[in-house]
Amino acid sequence: MSAKTITLIGTGNLGTNLAAALLKAGHKVVQLHGRSFQLDEIEGDVVIISIKDDALRAVAEKLKDTDKLVVHTAGSVPMNVLPTARRGVFYPMQTFSKQRIVNFSEIPIFLESDTDIELLEGLAHSVSQKVFQIDSEKRKSLHLAAVFACNFANHCYDLSAQILQQHDIPFEVMLPLIDETARKVHTLSPHEAQTGPAVRYDKKIIEKQENMLTGDKKEIYHLMSQSIHKSHDKL
Amino acid sequence: MSAKTITLIGTGNLGTNLAAALLKAGHKVVQLHGRSFQLDEIEGDVVIISIKDDALRAVAEKLKDTDKLVVHTAGSVPMNVLPTARRGVFYPMQTFSKQRIVNFSEIPIFLESDTDIELLEGLAHSVSQKVFQIDSEKRKSLHLAAVFACNFANHCYDLSAQILQQHDIPFEVMLPLIDETARKVHTLSPHEAQTGPAVRYDKKIIEKQENMLTGDKKEIYHLMSQSIHKSHDKL
Repeated sequence: MSAKTITLIGTGNLGTNLAAALLKAGHKVVQLHGRSFQLDEIEGDVVIISIKDDALRAVAEKLKDTDKLVVHTAGSVPMNVLPTARRGVFYPMQTFSKQRIVNFSEIPIFLESDTDIELLEGLAHSVSQKVFQIDSEKRKSLHLAAVFACNFANHCYDLSAQILQQHDIPFEVMLPLIDETARKVHTLSPHEAQTGPAVRYDKKIIEKQENMLTGDKKEIYHLMSQSIHKSHDKL
Repeated sequence: MSAKTITLIGTGNLGTNLAAALLKAGHKVVQLHGRSFQLDEIEGDVVIISIKDDALRAVAEKLKDTDKLVVHTAGSVPMNVLPTARRGVFYPMQTFSKQRIVNFSEIPIFLESDTDIELLEGLAHSVSQKVFQIDSEKRKSLHLAAVFACNFANHCYDLSAQILQQHDIPFEVMLPLIDETARKVHTLSPHEAQTGPAVRYDKKIIEKQENMLTGDKKEIYHLMSQSIHKSHDKL
C-alpha cells in the first residue's frame, strides 16, 4: 500500500512499539500524548488511539466530528465506543514493554471496521504477515484467552522467581524449562503437554509442596493443582 | 568419562528421555519396568530409579543390599530415602513427554551424593553442559518453583485453549504471544515483564472478563488478577 500519514494517540507500551513498526514500514507517524492533545495536531488519514481502556471513551469523544478514520487497539473494547463516522479496530495481540522493541511481522493483528476494512487491511499487512478479521464479540474472548496464556503464565514465572529468590537460586536456571514449556505447545496441545505432581495426582508431593507456601502462592498452588487434576481426571 | 553400564528402572516420560540421552552419549543402558524387575536383571555401575515419587521408596527398599551406586531423579524426594550404602540424586529439571525427545544438552541437571559425586558429575556432563550440585532441601524449593514456571504456566495455556475452543478460534493464533512471553523473561524479570488488565488495574475490564467465566476459570482469573495487582501495588 502507499505510505500513510498516521496520528497515533498514546505513548504507552503498545503505542511505542506500534509507532516503531509503522515508521519502519515507511509511514509518517505523528505521536501524541494520551489525553492532552489538541484537535489541530491530528494529521493524515488515520487516527490510532492506543491508551488505557477506561480512558478511551473520553478521547474518542473528543474526536467525534472528524472525517478521518479513527481506530482503537484494545482487545476488550467494542468498536462501537467510537462515535465517529469512520471507525475500526486494529488489535495486535502481543505483550508489549517499552524496554523491548518486538518484531511486529510475526504478531497476529485482528481487524474490524464497518467503513474502512480495506484501508486497515493494507495498513496491517504493511507491518505484519498475520492479519485476521474478527468481530468485537470474538475479540473479547480472544483477549480473555490472551490474559491466561500471557499475563497469568507470566505471573506463574514471577511466583517461581520469588520462590527461587527466597532460596538464593538464580532465576536463570528456570529458563530452559520455561522455553521448553512454550515450545512444547507448538506440537502437543497444552492438555497433552501437562506434566508434574498435579497431573500425576501425586498426593504426597502436592500436600508437601502446598505446605511449603503461604499467602497468595499457597492459594494459587491449591487452586491450580485442583484444576489440573480435575481437567485430567478420567472419572 | 568412560562409558558406563547403567540400569534404568522406569519407563515413564523422564525414563524414556533419559535412556535416549544416555545411549546417545555412548553408555550402555538396561531399561527395566518400574516395579516388577528382578534383582539379577540389574547390570553395571549405576542404578537410576525414575518412577512416580510415591512408588520410589518400595523400589529403593528392594535394592537395599546392593553395592552399586543407586540414584533417583525426583525433585521433591530427599536423598536419604535411599537405603543403600552408595547413593545420590540426578535431577534433570525439565518437562518430559514420551511423544517428544528433548535435547538434553541444554537441561540443567542438579546432583547430590555423599558417596559418589565425581561419578555423577561425569555422568551428568556426558549428557548436559549445565550441571549443578544442590542439597535435598534446596532441590525441594527448586522443584516447587518449577511447578509454577512449567506446570502452572502450561495450565494457563490449557485454560486459554479451552476459551478459544468455545469460540471456534484456533489455538495457533496464541503461539506468537506464548513465545514472546517466554522470550521476554530472558531479558526482563517476570515482574518487569508483566502487562495486561491486572497490572494496569483496569477495573472495568477485569470485572467484565471475570463475568465472562464460570467454575475453575473464574476462580483462577480472580485469584491471579488479585495476586498480580497486589504484587505490583506501590502502596
